[in-house]
Amino acid sequence: MAIGEVFFLILEIAGTISFAISGAMAAIEKRVDLFGVVFLGITTSLAGGIIRDVVIGRVPPAAFSDYKYMALAIGTAIVVFVLARVYHEHYKDNLELINNINNVFDAAGLGAFTITGANVALAMGYRMNVFFVVFLAMVTGIGGGVLRDLMIGEIPFVLRKRIYAVASLAGGYIYYLLYVKTSMDVMTAAFFGITVVFGLRMMATIFKWNLPKAFE
Amino acid sequence: MAIGEVFFLILEIAGTISFAISGAMAAIEKRVDLFGVVFLGITTSLAGGIIRDVVIGRVPPAAFSDYKYMALAIGTAIVVFVLARVYHEHYKDNLELINNINNVFDAAGLGAFTITGANVALAMGYRMNVFFVVFLAMVTGIGGGVLRDLMIGEIPFVLRKRIYAVASLAGGYIYYLLYVKTSMDVMTAAFFGITVVFGLRMMATIFKWNLPKAFE
Amino acid sequence: MAIGEVFFLILEIAGTISFAISGAMAAIEKRVDLFGVVFLGITTSLAGGIIRDVVIGRVPPAAFSDYKYMALAIGTAIVVFVLARVYHEHYKDNLELINNINNVFDAAGLGAFTITGANVALAMGYRMNVFFVVFLAMVTGIGGGVLRDLMIGEIPFVLRKRIYAVASLAGGYIYYLLYVKTSMDVMTAAFFGITVVFGLRMMATIFKWNLPKAFE
Repeated sequence: MAIGEVFFLILEIAGTISFAISGAMAAIEKRVDLFGVVFLGITTSLAGGIIRDVVIGRVPPAAFSDYKYMALAIGTAIVVFVLARVYHEHYKDNLELINNINNVFDAAGLGAFTITGANVALAMGYRMNVFFVVFLAMVTGIGGGVLRDLMIGEIPFVLRKRIYAVASLAGGYIYYLLYVKTSMDVMTAAFFGITVVFGLRMMATIFKWNLPKAFE
Repeated sequence: MAIGEVFFLILEIAGTISFAISGAMAAIEKRVDLFGVVFLGITTSLAGGIIRDVVIGRVPPAAFSDYKYMALAIGTAIVVFVLARVYHEHYKDNLELINNINNVFDAAGLGAFTITGANVALAMGYRMNVFFVVFLAMVTGIGGGVLRDLMIGEIPFVLRKRIYAVASLAGGYIYYLLYVKTSMDVMTAAFFGITVVFGLRMMATIFKWNLPKAFE
Repeated sequence: MAIGEVFFLILEIAGTISFAISGAMAAIEKRVDLFGVVFLGITTSLAGGIIRDVVIGRVPPAAFSDYKYMALAIGTAIVVFVLARVYHEHYKDNLELINNINNVFDAAGLGAFTITGANVALAMGYRMNVFFVVFLAMVTGIGGGVLRDLMIGEIPFVLRKRIYAVASLAGGYIYYLLYVKTSMDVMTAAFFGITVVFGLRMMATIFKWNLPKAFE
């Protein structure tokens, strides 16, 4: 396996774990049982990649024929569940902290899947179509989180949270620029892309960047 | 470009704008910020066509490789946002009027996408299968609105509103009949089809056509 | 038509009817009108198969080109509606019974579609990939119910109900084992698979099998 392939495999794994954590934590907050926690962990972590694959016609999606992503999501969700159960008093007393942790993993998953989505688009031969690359990157990045939020009955993050889809678009665009338009190697470009997504989300949260509403 | 192609391009554009308006207005009602408004405008206007393309295997969907639809949806949503912000007092004082305007654009989008959906089915060589044509037309027509309603946490229009899916089915069927079964030219047939969708929705709203419920 | 084909046709029909009943009953509980009831009946019964077909690239999905499944779902939903209307006093006085009936049909649909989903995977040449077969079986089985629950604004059964996705996975696995790994004929294997899904769901409901939650 070339080093680039290993790198993108690691990114897929990182995104899968991050979103499985975020899905499991969202499920725990809704007080569903172990199965629900595992199921939402799986859904959140696999949906982005499945949507990406279906949309580009790469069917059946990788998540269906390769069990490692599902196994990883299940394992991750179970660990989250056990930790939440064992430390449930700390968990319940620190909901704001928990929420922030969830936010961090959500941002990490968003970053990782944004870049893998962009990379799949590039590998398909869409190097000349920046719009396609960046749009597919965003859909891959936000898909899991949107489904997670719909399943637990919440208005999706992407509508409510500061700079969510835009962070993904910006990171995908930076990755495209650096990797396609300059001679930067793929891993460094990916690193910058992820940093942009993650950094924008974190800064928006920390500094409570506000965008205007039409009215209150 | 043949005149028929221009015509269907115009229809796609009209549907995209109409649904972007309707999505943006729905988002404003939920008090999300500018990004949320733009995002829901995009989702509402692109989802019907994306679902249609995925379902028939025309992947990647047009909305992914051609940025003009997304640009149009973004522009439209921003205009709606700015108008709502500038005239927010009128906006908030006239919610019933606003609701009616939203309804009109939703009906226009439903009409336009119903016909483009039917046309794609015909272009695929399904001229002999009226069921396929009409079903694909309906899915294209209602897809954006269903996703819009799910995203803002509402039970979809299509379950609640008078004669919604049925208006789309009726319009798609009329278009099929006139265009395939008579010698009517495609634009006139499309005009009648859209009129049926739009007219049925408007009349159902104005005259408060009621269908029975199982019980109250 | 070979007897195996007839058998799987019957299974598709049984699943379609079961989920149409369950969708229609869920819609009636939300007090939507006749169209809403029919629409949710259709959605619930067709979604699993449509998702399955899209995911494996068998497009357009069978439900789009063959009107019999939609006709069946419509007819079933209308019958449910009429019965609920005629016997509305009994209906409203026995909501727990009604709920149980809904549960039974939901379990039957889950069982039938789990097996047809597994069978499609096998027919595609994935005999050696148990993971693919069982995962596609589950997606086919749960797809309709998830969409039904999302459309009526509920957190999906699959997150809330005891042993829902797991019942589907178990039944799909048993079917795979018996049919692929032993010399059992397809119908007997399918019978056992369905029995496992249905039996697990019913027992979990009757005995109120509880799985741990992280905390209350």
